[in-house]
Amino acid sequence: MKLYDCGMAPNPRRARIFIAEKGLDIPSIEVSIIDGENLKDDYLAINPWGTLPALELDDGTVITEAPCIFVYLESLYPEPNLLGMDPIEIATVGSWERFCEMQGMQAIGEFFRNQNEIFKNRAMPGFSGISTIPDLVGRGKARAEWFFKKLEKQLGKSEFLAIDRFTAADITALCALDFAKRVGLELPPESKNIERWHKVVSTRPSSQL
Amino acid sequence: MKLYDCGMAPNPRRARIFIAEKGLDIPSIEVSIIDGENLKDDYLAINPWGTLPALELDDGTVITEAPCIFVYLESLYPEPNLLGMDPIEIATVGSWERFCEMQGMQAIGEFFRNQNEIFKNRAMPGFSGISTIPDLVGRGKARAEWFFKKLEKQLGKSEFLAIDRFTAADITALCALDFAKRVGLELPPESKNIERWHKVVSTRPSSQL
Repeated sequence: MKLYDCGMAPNPRRARIFIAEKGLDIPSIEVSIIDGENLKDDYLAINPWGTLPALELDDGTVITEAPCIFVYLESLYPEPNLLGMDPIEIATVGSWERFCEMQGMQAIGEFFRNQNEIFKNRAMPGFSGISTIPDLVGRGKARAEWFFKKLEKQLGKSEFLAIDRFTAADITALCALDFAKRVGLELPPESKNIERWHKVVSTRPSSQL
Repeated sequence: MKLYDCGMAPNPRRARIFIAEKGLDIPSIEVSIIDGENLKDDYLAINPWGTLPALELDDGTVITEAPCIFVYLESLYPEPNLLGMDPIEIATVGSWERFCEMQGMQAIGEFFRNQNEIFKNRAMPGFSGISTIPDLVGRGKARAEWFFKKLEKQLGKSEFLAIDRFTAADITALCALDFAKRVGLELPPESKNIERWHKVVSTRPSSQL
């Protein structure tokens, strides 16, 4: 297997952390989003959607989309469990993992890309020719603040985000929050539960990836 | 179990069709998105994210997000298989199902909501206080056209979207395409493969839901 990766991007980081938590060592190939390598023919021949991460299997099959890579690796390497042990756990982890992507990662990406000169003609991941829309900076910020509030509330109820142990939901939450910080979206000062949780998950060696 | 549903909305339709394809009879409760019932306290007490569909289990657990409802129901009722039989099939179906949501459903929703007076203060599903942005009408249309092209190409390679039989990927593609038509986004005239496929999947009784 090999992982198509991009060191600076938050979505490939979800896959890197998941792989590290499984104790796997999968070689990776860097594809620079900043340089637009993900939208060039060489990479589009591998993943026509132009997104990262993508996992190429030894038979040439390419698995795109971080959550699909998670499910694939969990089925091959069940330990340690990161996606839930029974149907209700799996649904709960899946919902929170998705929530962190759809409401966290996407909102923060909207805030970041639509004010960034580098992305002025590729405002959506995986696309050429989509212009930035300045009004989305404010919308992205408003959505991210709503996301922070929901996360703060949930982390007041449990030590980890979805269930009572570290799962893929915590991985995507961590990637979203660290991405927010990097692009200048600060947590509200009253985010005590998020801060407590963030300290705990940031002690895991995988968080350094 | 009971399904929180909204008859006119394309995302709950994914769940309705999935449930029908499994041969299940799950009672549903209508929550009107047009009337904003999904953003009122009664529904937010059930699903704090304000989105539809949601599946409530007999023990009170609520499973949100269509793909998580799919995985839950598939684990309880494995036949007929709709999510793939082995890890590679599961990844392939999952990627295409997600693609139809993220690039199809979201793009069409962007086109629809941002030009619609009803949604002027709730331009994002599940949110209050998010204003429409007229520039997103054009972006949504451009993204939808890109989505149609990718779908057309893929359906030139196989009878069904993800693998060689009907799966959840076809369900979400159908819901996205019918939604597009309803809101005035026409397929390009050269969409012969999509049209051939659409005829086939539309003969299934579940497609009438």
